[in-house]
Parts: sequence; structure tokens; C-alpha cells
Amino acid sequence: MHRLKDIKSFTLKLRHCASLKNTVVCSRCASTLSDLFPKHEEFSKRHNGPSPLQMKDMLECLGVKNLDELIDLTVPDKIRLDKELDLEDSICENEVLARLNLIAKLNRCDWRSYIGMGYYNCSVPRTIVRNMLENPGWSTPYTPYQPELAQGRLESLLNYQTMVVDMTGLDIANASLLDEATAAAEAVSLCFRHNKRRKFYVDEKINSQALAVVRTRAELIGVEIFVEKLSRMDFSCHDYSGVLVQYPDTEGRVFDFTDTIEQAHIHGSLVACSTDLLALALIKSPGELNCDIALGSSQRFGVPLNYGGPHAAFFAVKNDLKRLMPGRVVGVTRDSHGRKVYRLALQTREQHIRRAKATSNICTAQALLANMSAMFAVYHGPEGIRHLANRVHNATLLLAHGIQQVGHYLVHSDFFDTLKVHLMCGVHDIYRRSGEKKINLRIYNGGKVGVALDETVTEKDLDDLLYVFGCEKTAAQLAEEIDHDLEGNLSYSPFKRETDYLTHPIFHKYRSETNLVRYMKLLENKDVSLVHSMIPLGSCTMKLNATAEMEPVSWREFANIHPFVPIDQARGYQEMFKELERDLCEITGYDSICFQPNSGAQGEFTGLAAIRAYLKSKGQHQRTVCLIPTSAHGTNPASAQMCGLKVVPVKVNREGSVDLKELHVLATKYADNLAAIMLTYPSTNGVFEEDIVETCDLIHELGGQVYIDGANMNAQVGLCRPGDYGSDVSHLNLHKTFCIPHGGGGPGMGPIGVKKHLTPFLPTHPVVPPPGSLVPGAKPLGAVSAAPWGSACILPISWTYIKMMGAKGLKEASEVAILNANYMAKRLEDFYKVLYTGRLGFNAHEFIIDTRPFKGTANIDVVDIAKRLQDYGFHAPTMSWPVANTIMIEPTESEDKEELDRYCDALIAIRREIQDIENGHYDREINPLKMAPHTLEVITADAWNLPYSRTVAAFPLPYLTPDTKRWPATGRIDDVYGDQNLVCTCPPMEAYEDSDSEPTILRGIN
Amino acid sequence: MHRLKDIKSFTLKLRHCASLKNTVVCSRCASTLSDLFPKHEEFSKRHNGPSPLQMKDMLECLGVKNLDELIDLTVPDKIRLDKELDLEDSICENEVLARLNLIAKLNRCDWRSYIGMGYYNCSVPRTIVRNMLENPGWSTPYTPYQPELAQGRLESLLNYQTMVVDMTGLDIANASLLDEATAAAEAVSLCFRHNKRRKFYVDEKINSQALAVVRTRAELIGVEIFVEKLSRMDFSCHDYSGVLVQYPDTEGRVFDFTDTIEQAHIHGSLVACSTDLLALALIKSPGELNCDIALGSSQRFGVPLNYGGPHAAFFAVKNDLKRLMPGRVVGVTRDSHGRKVYRLALQTREQHIRRAKATSNICTAQALLANMSAMFAVYHGPEGIRHLANRVHNATLLLAHGIQQVGHYLVHSDFFDTLKVHLMCGVHDIYRRSGEKKINLRIYNGGKVGVALDETVTEKDLDDLLYVFGCEKTAAQLAEEIDHDLEGNLSYSPFKRETDYLTHPIFHKYRSETNLVRYMKLLENKDVSLVHSMIPLGSCTMKLNATAEMEPVSWREFANIHPFVPIDQARGYQEMFKELERDLCEITGYDSICFQPNSGAQGEFTGLAAIRAYLKSKGQHQRTVCLIPTSAHGTNPASAQMCGLKVVPVKVNREGSVDLKELHVLATKYADNLAAIMLTYPSTNGVFEEDIVETCDLIHELGGQVYIDGANMNAQVGLCRPGDYGSDVSHLNLHKTFCIPHGGGGPGMGPIGVKKHLTPFLPTHPVVPPPGSLVPGAKPLGAVSAAPWGSACILPISWTYIKMMGAKGLKEASEVAILNANYMAKRLEDFYKVLYTGRLGFNAHEFIIDTRPFKGTANIDVVDIAKRLQDYGFHAPTMSWPVANTIMIEPTESEDKEELDRYCDALIAIRREIQDIENGHYDREINPLKMAPHTLEVITADAWNLPYSRTVAAFPLPYLTPDTKRWPATGRIDDVYGDQNLVCTCPPMEAYEDSDSEPTILRGIN
Repeated sequence: MHRLKDIKSFTLKLRHCASLKNTVVCSRCASTLSDLFPKHEEFSKRHNGPSPLQMKDMLECLGVKNLDELIDLTVPDKIRLDKELDLEDSICENEVLARLNLIAKLNRCDWRSYIGMGYYNCSVPRTIVRNMLENPGWSTPYTPYQPELAQGRLESLLNYQTMVVDMTGLDIANASLLDEATAAAEAVSLCFRHNKRRKFYVDEKINSQALAVVRTRAELIGVEIFVEKLSRMDFSCHDYSGVLVQYPDTEGRVFDFTDTIEQAHIHGSLVACSTDLLALALIKSPGELNCDIALGSSQRFGVPLNYGGPHAAFFAVKNDLKRLMPGRVVGVTRDSHGRKVYRLALQTREQHIRRAKATSNICTAQALLANMSAMFAVYHGPEGIRHLANRVHNATLLLAHGIQQVGHYLVHSDFFDTLKVHLMCGVHDIYRRSGEKKINLRIYNGGKVGVALDETVTEKDLDDLLYVFGCEKTAAQLAEEIDHDLEGNLSYSPFKRETDYLTHPIFHKYRSETNLVRYMKLLENKDVSLVHSMIPLGSCTMKLNATAEMEPVSWREFANIHPFVPIDQARGYQEMFKELERDLCEITGYDSICFQPNSGAQGEFTGLAAIRAYLKSKGQHQRTVCLIPTSAHGTNPASAQMCGLKVVPVKVNREGSVDLKELHVLATKYADNLAAIMLTYPSTNGVFEEDIVETCDLIHELGGQVYIDGANMNAQVGLCRPGDYGSDVSHLNLHKTFCIPHGGGGPGMGPIGVKKHLTPFLPTHPVVPPPGSLVPGAKPLGAVSAAPWGSACILPISWTYIKMMGAKGLKEASEVAILNANYMAKRLEDFYKVLYTGRLGFNAHEFIIDTRPFKGTANIDVVDIAKRLQDYGFHAPTMSWPVANTIMIEPTESEDKEELDRYCDALIAIRREIQDIENGHYDREINPLKMAPHTLEVITADAWNLPYSRTVAAFPLPYLTPDTKRWPATGRIDDVYGDQNLVCTCPPMEAYEDSDSEPTILRGIN
Repeated sequence: MHRLKDIKSFTLKLRHCASLKNTVVCSRCASTLSDLFPKHEEFSKRHNGPSPLQMKDMLECLGVKNLDELIDLTVPDKIRLDKELDLEDSICENEVLARLNLIAKLNRCDWRSYIGMGYYNCSVPRTIVRNMLENPGWSTPYTPYQPELAQGRLESLLNYQTMVVDMTGLDIANASLLDEATAAAEAVSLCFRHNKRRKFYVDEKINSQALAVVRTRAELIGVEIFVEKLSRMDFSCHDYSGVLVQYPDTEGRVFDFTDTIEQAHIHGSLVACSTDLLALALIKSPGELNCDIALGSSQRFGVPLNYGGPHAAFFAVKNDLKRLMPGRVVGVTRDSHGRKVYRLALQTREQHIRRAKATSNICTAQALLANMSAMFAVYHGPEGIRHLANRVHNATLLLAHGIQQVGHYLVHSDFFDTLKVHLMCGVHDIYRRSGEKKINLRIYNGGKVGVALDETVTEKDLDDLLYVFGCEKTAAQLAEEIDHDLEGNLSYSPFKRETDYLTHPIFHKYRSETNLVRYMKLLENKDVSLVHSMIPLGSCTMKLNATAEMEPVSWREFANIHPFVPIDQARGYQEMFKELERDLCEITGYDSICFQPNSGAQGEFTGLAAIRAYLKSKGQHQRTVCLIPTSAHGTNPASAQMCGLKVVPVKVNREGSVDLKELHVLATKYADNLAAIMLTYPSTNGVFEEDIVETCDLIHELGGQVYIDGANMNAQVGLCRPGDYGSDVSHLNLHKTFCIPHGGGGPGMGPIGVKKHLTPFLPTHPVVPPPGSLVPGAKPLGAVSAAPWGSACILPISWTYIKMMGAKGLKEASEVAILNANYMAKRLEDFYKVLYTGRLGFNAHEFIIDTRPFKGTANIDVVDIAKRLQDYGFHAPTMSWPVANTIMIEPTESEDKEELDRYCDALIAIRREIQDIENGHYDREINPLKMAPHTLEVITADAWNLPYSRTVAAFPLPYLTPDTKRWPATGRIDDVYGDQNLVCTCPPMEAYEDSDSEPTILRGIN
């Protein structure tokens, strides 16, 4: 053993800690603090998947020296950014959270808001927050396009639809929309599509943000909005497509609009009703009143205020309108074994299939929030929801009693939870006392205020509110004055709801927290998310959503702020917006960012609307042609259509690039009417096209504007900037490049960046106009979302990501994303044809492999490969887009080489299986691909009748072991059956028993 | 459709909301606020499993009218509490968190602490916090006694042991102890057990809390502690069992103690070294220096300060001491298929088997925290750990440089991260400036202060510290003065570590957050926890750990406080302690609570120590006999032994109760020497014994004290109180009755409640004496834990639980726990013999079923039943305790009837399978029980050679489906092989390959 006999006392010396430094940082050799005491480790080391050693191997495999060389060979020289992004130095995760916490504390979540207008405080069950919102098992999966790996969240979304159908009394609901205001706009579009009439009535008493969005959207599709009192609406000319009513209205009034409904229907107009789920627990539902459409926000069902979002909006229609309904719909169908299973239904209405003819441009919805709301309904059940509604209503009655006693009077005597109060004292008295109690009320003109209660209201809150209104009695004292035997208000009124809701067993089984947690875990564990394996969905950028990025979302300082509080109570948010805008401008080369659009498709719409507003301001109303390559995302043409633009498709040449010749011909042909071109860069074929600058120049020369779809920003950050190479506007999918998780189909955020000339046209908001919309010269295009800054509460995710990565880290992420894609393409090229590459043979951050030949050689469709990948434990890449019957792979920078290799191994093994069909070893109908996916039920059954072994079916490669394998929850889905037998609410329990009684899998008992 | 033509305006009336009230609350019919505006729903509705309807069914099944009647028939009348507990009204979860948040804010986590002494700030990777600490999949499993369902956490604990072995350079480590101070005391015990010498040296420079605990513990086992300078230690008389050294010492000095080691070894004494894992990244390890034992806290590896706990302590020894080592050890063994698997090793040393002869009384450890530390090492790997250590060390060198420049001098020139500074200015200047900067330093006497740096220190922190010491230069300026080419300090010294650590691949594979998350999820999903199914471990009370209870644990106001801050910086904690003490006193009938013991066994030790101190204070030193029924927990005799008490076992009669006659005989026989009796109530046989009052009276008459083990408090809360029926002291397992989760084997908390006469003897603390220990008349028994209030940071869990339940809810929980147990016993009684019941035929909250007969009739052992339960998706109940070859079932109140029924169905089905062996249908060796558990690997294999079907093996009841079934991760564990071939660190990767190459399961390829 060692002896340390000869220890001398130390002299105080420091050594040059080259070893302490991040390998990426160059080591200047001056003795500075950063040598001796380096910053904390770079977060980019955690964000990027491959280790330095792995990267070396991968670069070698590609035959390039280093990342720089790879990028030189990939990104056209002329668009390369020649500087480092000017961002703050990267900071480590604990420091970034400490800093953000200081910013967050500028938000005054100690104020109580009774503003209402569609946003209500809510007691979010903590177990739902922790086990869904804060759980990457729920937050990181993708939209459930692969239903066999998504039965958990599909079941939950079906619960959501069932809840909406029950509460609204309508026939069919979708799985959420973005917010109440855009849902209202979708209702207008639906009515217009239904009967093609170009006028639309809106009751004057709807939330002003909904009206604003309806106006913006309607104007662009040429529908005229008439805001009118109900009593003065006249449908007799048959020129109104429909009417939108809010019930209870924005001022809280519960009112009778059955006359309006009758009149509308007599004259062929539809009736859409914006409503409140909690109120519907006590009052008759829109369905019972014979409305055609019901919509609204499900925020108060289990989702925090979030300074405006994200929350899920609901949308339900009568049965005969279902094919016109926007948004995703979950339906019931059967799988290859005849079992009842869930999947997305009616997809043929949607933009990814119908493009410009789609019912809407909706792609991202609010799945995670819809799931929270559904679980809230599961948690409370009908009697719990009724309890909450009664409690809120009674509190409002008590408050109303107190308010009237001191001489104020109520503008509306029929209400659920919201009062409009005509004050009999000076408004300033009220302001003073509400300020003293830190209470926000809704302010009307003319000495009136509004107060909207919610389920979180306590006795103390009531007493404080009574004090604010000058009532000296407490709630307890008021209660004693009241004759409790008298029935009253809603429960005695003709509005009283007498129909049941939430009757399905699912809303009765999980009342204890133990049961609810197990239910949430059971659903979570049916699904594949990023916590299991890579999900290389081309164009969807499924990368790391780090915990440090996610944590701030549930901080009360961000979560518990009403969107319409005075702006000085949200200084933390404002500061964060400012910093994020600055950083995103630097990253993109744009001059301003607008955070209002709360999805990528919304961003497209907003960007195009800004272009139209800009062109109109120059008197160029006639510019309505929008050139869109045929390879574009379906949202592009759908969004253009929503902006009233005429979509002119541009062909893609054999190299996968926009056919420049045709583009030239078309652009010139439409020169006078050319509004814009929408391009994705790098292209959706995964190529950095060389001619992007020329293309932009051409459009500009002809007077058009350039819209670059930001979906592929993940290949560009730090390498090139749309704002530099010719684009005028882009949306940024913060849920792709900037680390907001996909949530199983939302939330997303689609802020847009614009060049200076478009800045004046950026959206405003009728309640809280963003500062930019108030500067001289601003000519805002209107509002596009319900909340002024869209889904504000998830912006800290992107803020945190950028701060932790810094300029170097962000650039490296793009480089590694490109490296990973090229490495996979290289490994696969001997087995599959890689469809397009750049001029020098390299791809951007994604690539397409061609599976078309196998149809002929082996009777194999792309879907067979996708399903077989599930047996290999993987979620399929993007299928059949942008090229039919191919798959597009985007690994992202967050995956390491081992995972990339496993995925390649799986694809190569599948290619060998195809070969085994080609060479006759397997039958063309009964083979591991056609039978895929193989469920646990099949593999564990007593009988085995397939012409290959269980091992071949379930464990075809060594990395697949019972320890690690993720199992598909169902056999292959029968989509046709589902659409022919549409069921979009929870089926009765017997349905499951029935399906059990028709076993197609033999399971003997001994 | 409806028309609402006839709507009248409403009059403002309220209805009596009987429907709003919780059904349990009686409905007084006065018009009060609580009628009209009831409180929020009772949390007890969420905590208790069965619905009112289910309860009705269950009561019916038991033939009793209602819960009251059941309790009347179960709990002896004479001990029934005749009032409602005097607790605050229950409040709902969001309100309780709002209230606790106000309390938490009284903790000043804005102060930075550089106090050291074993507690250091740490950048806890947020992904570890979210995916382990905050994840019920990790926090709710039990100690891994069923290794087939616990491979995930066993692997992680093995990583922990490997990390400890690597860093300390010793041969074998355990899977954690409670804290550094108790680990030090365990080292003293180990040395004493090793060579039976009754003197022990302690270096004067160890942390004072460790010294205090060592003193308390040594005194009670009759070992004399000599605190001495190293240079003056003399081992030559061969009467010292060992020596304890701290390295680096409490003042931060790194010093040479190889002479001491040599001298000790020459004379047969052992050397224990308390050390610091981060320092060991740079300096030679205790193992290299030839120490026999190394111990310390692994807190700074990934666990927050937590105001003192919980954290894991580590403990490692040379190979020849392994059977003397305290605590759980994870080892590698093989399963029935020959695969390498993990399980608890060397259990025969432990209290649950060896009782009074065990190596220690340790039962609960700190598994969850050890797992966090292990994952911290996995996350950083050797180069990351070295980076952190270098960074901290360099920061300390810079600070030292600045401190010396202004004229202070360093008491020790050789250090890692901690300085002791002799001030050359007034201490008050330092205080003033440190107050101004909100910085806590360590205060020594005589104008000296200490400062201990940690990995979170930033440049600004350094500058602030320099300012505090009066240095006008910044860290950056100092850095520039230093000659960077000179090697210096540790890296140049003879202490420099030159051996590798963390070389196993596990510490190199998961560096990206993506990979780490997947690794954590993979491990989590191998295990069964409360998120999957009930775990009815008799006496362990595995009940709901609600999210609302868990959330405050990770609030920074609780997590980021050093335990030795001035008490006025921890006013939030103090307030919470006060409230919790008050509530627990009310619940138990005791007069004081001491929160220092941080496990149940620690509580036992402390309670018995208080009794001894009390008896000694009355001059009754001779009272050293402790009567303990043979049915007691193994910790009881082990704890008594640690208190120097002589354990006299008392037999249990055929009814499962203490044999009163024998008790009388024994008590009388030992009357003069009788110190105490330790009883569990209701008894460990699950019975409310009728004679408890008489028993207590008898002991008191003979001059002894009564210790009631609080393990079964869950049957008593609100129904009866130990403090009322005759007990003098109890520990409370807050991790059983009061909802702290089990964490896979800790943390727990075992505060003790005592009657007034014992209060003066409750523990104190050398650094921060609790207020109670300072009152006149206090004669504290010493310290029992490193931190003044034990694992303070998990106390909010119990605080929150009590506040949310209120008196009614708590009582109802006990009642439902009793109902659930009796219902299960009733359902099972036709199939199994229920061993003991109370006088009127009812059980308490748990019961025993007798499986002994099956050995003869069917060759079936209790372990076969336990393993077969895994095939039914369930964790086994407690096995062979308190009666060998039986199982004890405690369902708790949190499970609903459906889950209870599933568990009963499983046990009944297993009984039928046993019958099939009895009647010859199954072979006595090859049958579903003997072959259990059946793994996925077996069930999915191509070949099937068992004489029953795959369905019988894996899905023997309809509730078991591929969708819902939890699979055991391994075949049956071979314990004997593991103990014969002990491996307690991560085996080399080839070991797994080897095991793959000896397949015992056929898996053909097509």
C-alpha cells in the first residue's frame, strides 16, 4: 500500500486546466479565469446524442474529415452565415433556471383574477399535472398516426370527445382545436362550406377576442361578418350561412335564443354556439336547444390559465356536419384480430391529404391539454363536475346578493358564474379596494365592472370580493339571511339541465388517486414516446425535450396568470418575450417576431395574412396567387386557401428540387397577380437547394413575397438564415426546432418572423394589444388567436433551450442533425435507394428512401414496412410524404450512433425479409411484413399457425429482448372499417366483451 | 327540441345544496355557508380506495351494518378514543399547497451557504429530479425483496455500490445507510464486533455531528470513545478496536495518516475513514491508503441539501469484513434460466433474520437517494466527476489566493474545497459583509471562519466571497496574476489520485439526456410499484402517496437549505415542525415528538435510549431487560441490543397474542431489572389484543416502561391512541401511516412520540440544538442522526397528508383499512386458514393466511405461492413473518374493492392450482407454482416444453391480459448461488454475454 511520508506543504499554485474545458471550446492559452475556472459544462453535450468518439466514426463512415467539411459539402456556400450568432453565452441548466425564476417572479401570481372572458382559474389535480403534463411519457409522443403504438392517448382523446359530446349534447366532437377564438372562426368556415353563403351573423355579446379572430379569418375568405343583437337578426333572405351565439354570453347572461335557432333553421342557416363546459353541467346543452355546432375552451376542465395558453378548445357538431368538421377526430375501429381499437378517423378531410381543399389547415391540435381535460372529467365524474358547477353558481348567487344589498345592481339577473355590475358608487372606490386586495375585475365602460367566479373560490375570496364591492357582511352572514328551502335560479329555471352526462363507466371508475394514477400509467405505457426510442419522423423534428426546459411550464408564476391582467402584472412574461424575440430574430435574420400564432399552420396563415395586408397597403389587392411546390406540407396550400389565395402548384424535378424552369414560367405567367411563394428550406425532400437565392430574387423582382416554411429550421440554425437569403416571413415551429415537446399532437407554437416591411402588419389583440401593435404606423392585420401571445406558457421551453445552448451549441446541434441524417442515409444506401441528395451527394437533416419498387417485387407497400418497424420496436418515419410510397427519416441531433444503428439494422433486416419474399422464401400474403405488427397477444398465444417462428415475428434482431422491447398494443388497424362504421365516443363496455367473444387468436386453457 | 319561451326573470334564491355535501358529512339543516357553499371536496375521497357503494357491498359481505359496527367489533371498547381528534378542518389539495407555500417562503433559500460539514450544494440534474425523485414509478416501490419485480432499482443500486467501491478504493459497498453520522457509528460497532475491544479512537477533526452520534451509540453498547489527535494515538496495548479519521477533515485539511493506519494495523485495530466522494476524484482513496472501512455522505452526488436529509450515506469495507457490514447489499446471482440477475445479498446478516444478533438494526435505507446519486455518476461519468472536482478545487485555490492577499491566513495549506481562515480583521466586518451578500460561512471560535465551496459556485459567487473577505480583486483579476504553467496543489502532490474510477461501461453510455431518460425509464418499467397494482405487504402499509403530498419535497424553499443555517433562515421548517408535532401528539396521545430519527429502526433505538436515559436519571442503571414478543419485528430486538438492553423473548399464544401468563412470569422474574417491554399494537398478527391496558399496567407496576412500535399506527389513527392506553413512547413510521413513499427501500422517517416524563431526554444536536433540548431541565440523550431534524425535507409529505385529511378523514382511513383487511380475509377464508383474529372474529388492518399445510399436501412452500403471484401480476405479501411459512396481507385503505377482488381471485386461483397438485393433475416438481415466475422470455419462446399451456402460465385469469399484465423481469432467483459467488459491483459486460451463451430457453430462428 501507499505511504505518503514525503508530503511537503503545498505552495499555492494553480494548474492550467485544459482538461477542464469543453472539447469544443478552443483553448486559448492565456491564464484567464475561464482557463482556471471554466463555466459549467455545456448543455449541448446533453442535448446532442453522439459522443465525440461516435461522431468521429460517423464522419469517417461518410468520408469527411470533420463536421465543418460535412457542412461545407451540404449547405450552399452562398447562403452560409459568416459569423457566430450574437447570443448570450450558454449557461448550465441550474443557472438558467435560477435566472428564469427571477424573471418569472416579475409575474404577479399573487393577484386573483375574476376577469372571465373564457379563462377561469381551476384546481388542477396535482396528480394529473405530475403524471401527465410533467411526464415525458405523455408529453413526448407524436400525433397518433401509428395507432398501434398510440392506444393510450387515443383512448384518452376518445374520453375527451365523449366528454364534449355529453356536455354539449351534440353528436360528434373532435379531439381539440387551438383555442375558443379559432374554433369560432372554424365554425364560420364550416357554415360557409356548408351552404356557400357569404354573410354571417355574430351576436354582439361574444368574447371580443373571438369576434376579432372571426373577423380576421372571415374577411380573408370573403365572408362578411354582421355583429347584431339577436332580436334584430333576420335570416329571411337566405343569405346568412349561419349565426354565432355565446351561451352564457360574455357578460355572464344565461338567455333564451331558441327563437333565433328556429328562425335560422327555417331559412337554412346554421347555428353555432360558443359555450362553457362547466355551465353546461347545470343548464340545457346547445344540443338540446338544437344548435348545430358547439365550441369553446376546455381550459377550466383541469388546465391552468397559462397566461392564455396552451389549452384545448372543443368543437362538436350534429352528425350530418361531421365531414365538414375541422381538426382531428379519434374513432373506434377494429384491428386485424377483430378487437375494438382506436385510431384517427376521417383523415380524408384533413390538410395532409386534401391540401387546399381540406376542411381547415389544422395539423397540430392541443392533444396534451385535451388529455388533461379528459382526465379531469374522469377524475371528477358527473357528480363531481355537478358539484363544482353548483358550488360556483351558489358562490355567484351569494356574491350577487351581497352586491345588491349595498345598492349596486346587476345588469343581468340570469347568470351562471359571471356578473355584470352597474356600480352605485365611484369606480375608483372599487379600483382602490380591489387593488388593496390584489383582485382583478373585468372593467367595462360606463361605471360597470364584471366579476366571474370559478371553482377555486374560497370563503375568504368571497369575503374579499364583498369587501371590494363595499358590502360589510361576510359570505357567512349573507348565507344566514337566505331562505334555504326555496329553490332558486338555474336549478329552478327553464334552463335547468335535466339530461345526464358522463354516464360512461370510464367516468366512474377512477375516483381514488390510486386508481387514477394507475389508469394514467396504463395508458402511458401502451404508447411509444421519446422515452423509449427514436421517432425519426421526417419534417417533425422529434428531439430532446429536456426537463430543464419543461420545468418552468408548471411554475405557478407562469401557470397562474390570466391573459387579460394589466400588463404590469405580467412583467416576467413581457421580459421573457422580449429576450426570446431578440434571440429568434438573431437566429433567423428577421426583424420582428410575433408570438400570437399558436401552431405551425396558424403561423403560416398569419404570415400569409401579413403578406396580403402588406400588398393591400400598397394597393395591390389583385395579388392573390400563391405558388406552392407540390412537395409542400399540406398545411401550406390549406393555409393559403384560408387567406383567400389562389394556390398554383409548382412541380418538383427529378432531383427533388423545385423545377426552376417551371417556376419561372409560372411566376412570369402570374406576375401581375403574384402574391407569394411558399417554400420549405431545406426542401421537404431533405435537400439544401442551391438556387434558393435566385428563386427569392425572382419572386421579389416580380413583386411577390417569399414565405419560407420554418419546419426545417433545425437544419439551419447557426448555418444560414432565411432572413438573409431572401425570405420575407417564416413561421417557426417551436415544437420542432426549439424543443417544445409534441405532446402526442400538440401543443405547438408557430410564431412568425418577418422582415421590417411586414412588421407593421403583425397581429394585434382587442383586449391586450401587444406593444408593437400600438406604435405609430402599425396597421395590424387583426387577431389570429384568442390570447395576445398565443400559448405563452410554453415559450419558456424555447427560451431555456436557446439560453442553455448558446450560439455554439445551437450551431453544433444543426451540424449534428445533418451528420446523423447523412450517416443513416449512408448506412442504408446499399439496401434502399435514397431518393434525393444535394449537388455534392449529401442530405440535409432528413432524407427519403424509396420503397416503391417492393410493391412489384414482393407485394409490399410502404405501410407494411411501417408496421413491421413496430415489431422492431420502432415508430415508423413519415410515410408517403412528400413522395407517395416512400419514407422520410429525420433522426435529429439528439439520437446517438447506437440508436441510429439499431434503426438502420431494423430497416436493413426488413429489406432482407422483403428479399425473402422476392426469392420465394416467404409467401407474398402471409409473411412477417404483411402480418405486422405482431402483438403480445399473438406471440404469447398457445397456438402458433404462422409459417415463421415467434422469434422471427417478435425478436428478429439481437437488440430486441423481452427486457427492452416495446410491444404494439393492437394488431394492424382496419381504417376502412372504422370510417364506414364511424364511432367517435367511448363505446359501451359490451363492445369490448363482444370483441373478446370473437377471438381470432386461439388461446386454449391447458 | 326544447323551447324556453316561458322564461321568467329569476328571483335571487339559493337552494339547499344537500347534494353538494360529502356523503360522509352529516347534513345539519341550518342555512349556513357550509350548506350553500360547501368546502371543496374532501381529499379523503381520493385517498381511500373503495367507493361508498363498494363499501356497502363489503360491509354486507362481512355481515355488519356499517363501519361503526365493524370498528366496534374490532377495536376493544376500553381503548377506544371517545372524541374526534382535535385537528384543523381538512383542506383541499390546492389550498393546502398554497398554505404550505406561504410557510415555505419563510425559509430563506436566497442565502448561499458555504458551511460544509458534510453538506454541499449540488447541481441536481433536473432530469433525475423529474424522472426519479418526482416519479411515482421510482418513489413508490418497496424494498426489493422480490427481485424478479425489482431488477430496475436493483441494477441502479448496484451502480451505486460500484460507484462507491470505485471512489473509495475498497472491495465491497452496501446500498446505502441513513447518513454520515450513523454510518460512522456503524463503523464503530463493526470494529467492536470484529475484535471485541471496548475502546475506540476518534480523530478530533471529524464533523461534530458524527462525533455526537458515535458517542451516543457507543456509550449504549459499552464502547468507550477517545477523541485524540492522530499523533497521540497509541494502539500498542491492543485495546482499541479501531480508529475513525475524517479525510479531508472537518476543517478541510488533506493530511497524511498513513502512519496511523500502519500503527493501527500492527496492533490489530481497524481504520475507518469518513470521506468525501468528490474529493476522492482527485486524492488517493482510503482503499489505496489501506483503510479498512470508508464511509460518508453521497449527498453532493446529485441530491439537494434538503435541510439535512434525506440523503444516502455510503459504507464500504475490505472484503474480509463484508459479513460484518451493516445495511442492505445488492449482489449478482443467476436466475432459474442461468441469466445474470440482481438481488439482495447476504441477508442472513440482517435484523429480519438475525434479530438481536444482526449486524445492525437497519431496515429502511435511503434507496431512492442512493439511486439519484448513482444516476448522477452515470450522468457525469469519470471525466465529468473529475471536471467537477477540479473546478471546485481550482475555485478554492483562487479564493485562497485572494484571502491571503489581504492578510488573512489559512490554518491549513493543504485542502480540497474547504478553507479554515484565521482572520486578520474583526470578525464583525466579515459578518456584516456576509450578511449583506446573504452568505453563510462556518463560524469557528477565536476569530476564525470556514468556507466550503461546491460545484454550483459561479464566478459571481467567488467575487462575492472575495468581497466578504475584504479582497478588492475579482476572481478574474486574481486568475490573471497566477502563473498558469505551474502545476499546483493536489494535482501535483503526493495525494494525487492516480487510479481510475467509474470505468464500467454503465458510467459511459448515458451521457446525453435522451439516453439517460431512456435508461431511467427502462429501469423503472422493469419494476412493480404502486402505480401498477396493490402491494399488500403486511406491516409495511403501502398506501397512496399523493402528488400533492410529494410536490413540496422538490420546492426549492425546502430543498435548498443547509441544515446548519442560523435557525431564523429556516423559519418555514420550524413552523412546519411545530404544526406537525402538534398534530402527531394529538393523533398519538403523546406529549412531545422528536423528528431526529430518520428511520423506523432509528426511532426504536432513540425511544429505547430515552427510556434508558430516564431510568438512569432515576438511578436505575440496572434496568436493562427488554421483553419482546417473539412475533416482533426483527428491528425490535436489534434496536434493543444496540441500546445495551438484554432481550428476553416472550412467547405468543395460539391466538397470536402475547402469552399473558408467560409475560407475567417473565416480568416478575426480571422485575428489578426490567427496563421496558416492546409491543406492536395492534399485534403483528393483525389483532387488536384485548389486554393491552392490563399489559401496560403490569409493566408500569414493575417499574418498567412501555414501548409501542408504531408500525401498525395505520389501524389506530382516530380510533385509539398509544399515549392513552399506557404506552410511554412510540416511533411513528411516517413512511407507512403518514404517506411518505417507500422509495424502493427508503427514505423513511421514524420520529418518536413520548409522554411528558421522557421529554427531557429527547435528542439534541451539537451544531443546531433543537429548541426543546435547550429548555431548563432538559437532559438530552445525545444525538442520533447527522441532522437536527433527521430527513426534514420529507416531513411536508406527512404535514400535507394530515392537513388534507383532517380528523374525520384520518379516522375514516383507519376504518377503511380495517374494512379492506377484513373483507379480504372473509373472501379468502374458504380457501385458506386465516391464522389469528380478534375475540369477535375480526382482524385489524392486516391478517395472516396459513400456507404451511401445502408443504405436505403438495410440496408447495410459501415462496412458490409468492413467486406464482407474480404471474398473476402481483407483488407478494409479507412472507414468513411473523409466522414462518405464512403470508401476511395488509391491503391498506387506498385500494378499492376491484383491486382487492383481483388479488383474492389470484390467491384463490393459486389455491386451486395447489389442489391440482394435491389431486395429481400437476406434477409435484413441474407445475405452475414451482416454475413461477414465468417470464416473457419463456412465454414468447419458440419451444414450449411445460406440461401446461402458455395461457395457464401467464394469463391464468381473465383480468390478466397482454394489455395490462406486468411481467416479472427474471426467472426465479438463485439466492444460494449468489451468496456463494458474491459479486456486489457491476459485472463486466461479458458476464451478460456469457449468460446469453448458455441458453436454457430454446429460441430457434425459424
